[in-house]
Amino acid sequence: MSALRITGTTITPVALKDPPLLNSSGVHEPFALRSIIEVHTDAGITGINEAYGDDATLDLLRRAAAVLPGVDVFDLNELSRRVSAAVTSVAASSPTELIGAASADKTVAQAVAAFEVACFDAQGRAVGRPVSDLLGGAVRDRVDFSAYLFYKWAQHPTAPDDPREFDVDPWGEALDPDGIVEQARRMVDRYGFGSLKLKGGVFPPDEEVEAVLALRRAFPDRPVRLDPNANWSVATSHRVAEALAGELEYLEDPTPGIPGMAEVAAKTDLPLATNMCVTGFAEIPEAVRLGAVQVILSDHHFWGGYRATQALAGLCQTFGLGLSMHSNTHLGVSLAAMVHLGAATPNLTYALDTHTPWKSESEDVVLGGGLTFTEGAVAVPAGPGLGVELDRDAVARLHEQYLTCGVRRRDDAGWMRRVRPEWTGKRPRF
Amino acid sequence: MSALRITGTTITPVALKDPPLLNSSGVHEPFALRSIIEVHTDAGITGINEAYGDDATLDLLRRAAAVLPGVDVFDLNELSRRVSAAVTSVAASSPTELIGAASADKTVAQAVAAFEVACFDAQGRAVGRPVSDLLGGAVRDRVDFSAYLFYKWAQHPTAPDDPREFDVDPWGEALDPDGIVEQARRMVDRYGFGSLKLKGGVFPPDEEVEAVLALRRAFPDRPVRLDPNANWSVATSHRVAEALAGELEYLEDPTPGIPGMAEVAAKTDLPLATNMCVTGFAEIPEAVRLGAVQVILSDHHFWGGYRATQALAGLCQTFGLGLSMHSNTHLGVSLAAMVHLGAATPNLTYALDTHTPWKSESEDVVLGGGLTFTEGAVAVPAGPGLGVELDRDAVARLHEQYLTCGVRRRDDAGWMRRVRPEWTGKRPRF
Ligand SMILES: [Mg+2]
Ligand SMILES: [Mg+2]
Repeated sequence: MSALRITGTTITPVALKDPPLLNSSGVHEPFALRSIIEVHTDAGITGINEAYGDDATLDLLRRAAAVLPGVDVFDLNELSRRVSAAVTSVAASSPTELIGAASADKTVAQAVAAFEVACFDAQGRAVGRPVSDLLGGAVRDRVDFSAYLFYKWAQHPTAPDDPREFDVDPWGEALDPDGIVEQARRMVDRYGFGSLKLKGGVFPPDEEVEAVLALRRAFPDRPVRLDPNANWSVATSHRVAEALAGELEYLEDPTPGIPGMAEVAAKTDLPLATNMCVTGFAEIPEAVRLGAVQVILSDHHFWGGYRATQALAGLCQTFGLGLSMHSNTHLGVSLAAMVHLGAATPNLTYALDTHTPWKSESEDVVLGGGLTFTEGAVAVPAGPGLGVELDRDAVARLHEQYLTCGVRRRDDAGWMRRVRPEWTGKRPRF
Repeated sequence: MSALRITGTTITPVALKDPPLLNSSGVHEPFALRSIIEVHTDAGITGINEAYGDDATLDLLRRAAAVLPGVDVFDLNELSRRVSAAVTSVAASSPTELIGAASADKTVAQAVAAFEVACFDAQGRAVGRPVSDLLGGAVRDRVDFSAYLFYKWAQHPTAPDDPREFDVDPWGEALDPDGIVEQARRMVDRYGFGSLKLKGGVFPPDEEVEAVLALRRAFPDRPVRLDPNANWSVATSHRVAEALAGELEYLEDPTPGIPGMAEVAAKTDLPLATNMCVTGFAEIPEAVRLGAVQVILSDHHFWGGYRATQALAGLCQTFGLGLSMHSNTHLGVSLAAMVHLGAATPNLTYALDTHTPWKSESEDVVLGGGLTFTEGAVAVPAGPGLGVELDRDAVARLHEQYLTCGVRRRDDAGWMRRVRPEWTGKRPRF
């Protein structure tokens, strides 16, 4: 095969409807932003991927895209080199503070990831192989996901000056243990998830402890995780960890920062997991030295792509850390990308997070509406590439929605201020 | 592309002539053993590789080979899984104690590596790409190597009961600083190496310090490394490190074990390198915790292959460790394999070790006699695969030599005992 050189890229921002999911920052806005990446090659093959879609990310992706023409889609080192050089002067930013502090390295990693996965898709299409094969082969033909439970409102409240009425999603309100158990029951019935994750950090910790215990009673065979997104002090974390001893598969980001997490870890047998205090390679040595975390939630979108995530997997294996996978609100291309990586990473033994159930079933960018869940798992697409195709009409519709939705950067705290003007989203609140 | 399934393997032990190179274990025997691996597939494509060739390794490789039929050459995770299961009960052994203590993990890693690289060669042949492309792309089109200098005798002495007369190699004796400088001069003139490595641990450390200083005077622009293969006590190591402060690119394995290395590291600014105390992933956490080493010498033959070495590269990058590459006596397939990996590993910034100059120019297993050195570097073969082809006649000749040479496991100490009956090879001697 001769070179498969990039001739150009297409970056299409899209918006999907998002329910009013509560978290420590505030509340999900009515629309979430993503971008659909297409990498075109001189062989007529186009690789696709999905990335964040806020203005800062779009600027980043466009700067990176400008230097890609001429790069062979197999030459991922050259891709990294060029992208690093192109975006090194871009101010560090993060699509959401829920994935940790921004840094120059992480900004580069996001830009590389967006195009690297598209190059893998193009490679797979060129050689007629699923991406999982190019990552070393699927060790499982189905990838397990967990039910991602959220406290939520029934509907986004409308500000006095906002003429819009936002959709009512089918899930209804969930503001207490009964609401969460009911949500879990519906989600498990619908998708078959074998493990449960509650997004916490919303209500006073005792209420969230009650919700976890209620889930444990209702689903005694299903491991439960709790993720308050660093909204607790160390002392509160100690107290919750004691109250939930033996009840959690892992406790995710109870408190901010590596030293704080290490203090929490020192007094509990619950494994601590993170997608906030260790979200880049530079943060690993301190975390290892202090024994701050026992599970790292990978996410190829911000760790730097597939190869970087494989390096992370090697680090976790070497240092005896567990490996799980994080999710932000996403569409079907990201789901496929997660499935291939999850399938080809032997030590990714925890069920992966996904926001898929929170997405409107009528909204996706892939033909057929996206990969489906059976018994909580997604079958690895047989390929080639990521094994999903863009639905051009759907991309156009969601792009149109992007143009009109008014959201240009994720601001969970800002939307919460419509309801609670004093809201800052400052952590830890409890 | 449909599956490219392994139908069978061919493992051919070969012997090449080896000069009487001295080291802390003893002396290289007149013949060194390698094995040539061929992985045959149902597409008619055969991938090749080269591994150790001692009896224990051959047994290991044959056990592993038995479980490979049916494995897709892209499914490297399945390869690892099957090989691990097949050889897990094999007693841990190492082809030489000069690459550290044996362990079950390392035994598996050697077996996986032997076939994984052959699978990469087959992949590359199938898709028409050099192996470096499958490893993420060459970041350099030429890979630098260092001159590997050895104290040596002019000829292997013959034991009273041994009727053989061994070849005189073209390099002559080197037993003192002048001899080493002369050897370096010839090697640099012939190959153009830009850096120098002296295998030490042979003579009293003061003599080796003198040799290093003589090299530094004779080649002021060339970085010098010294590798006594853990033949010094911590106290001796401190003394030598002080004597050579500022003179070495790195000091390789001065003393045995991670704690010992850490003691040495604590008192010197010289970077300590290793291919003895950290030769498997299980040894990394302690080495990191104690700050025992600053450079790890990779070697895909015993780290577990290409993907494992990439994981090692990620670990080194993350923990701020340098990455170099180790060599045992090898033929042209291993050289090609090292070049592809060296080219595709961005942080492999040190010149690689190679024993190539010590090989008879008339002995190799690849067509054309092997890749060539220009200005100390080897150009990355343009592929496909490893970019070298087996010379069937040469393989047959070196296999015949294997059958008649009488060596079945490397035993540098045993040969030394022919000359010095009291020799044990026990370290540290100084
Ligand atoms: Mg989280
Ligand atoms: Mg060494």
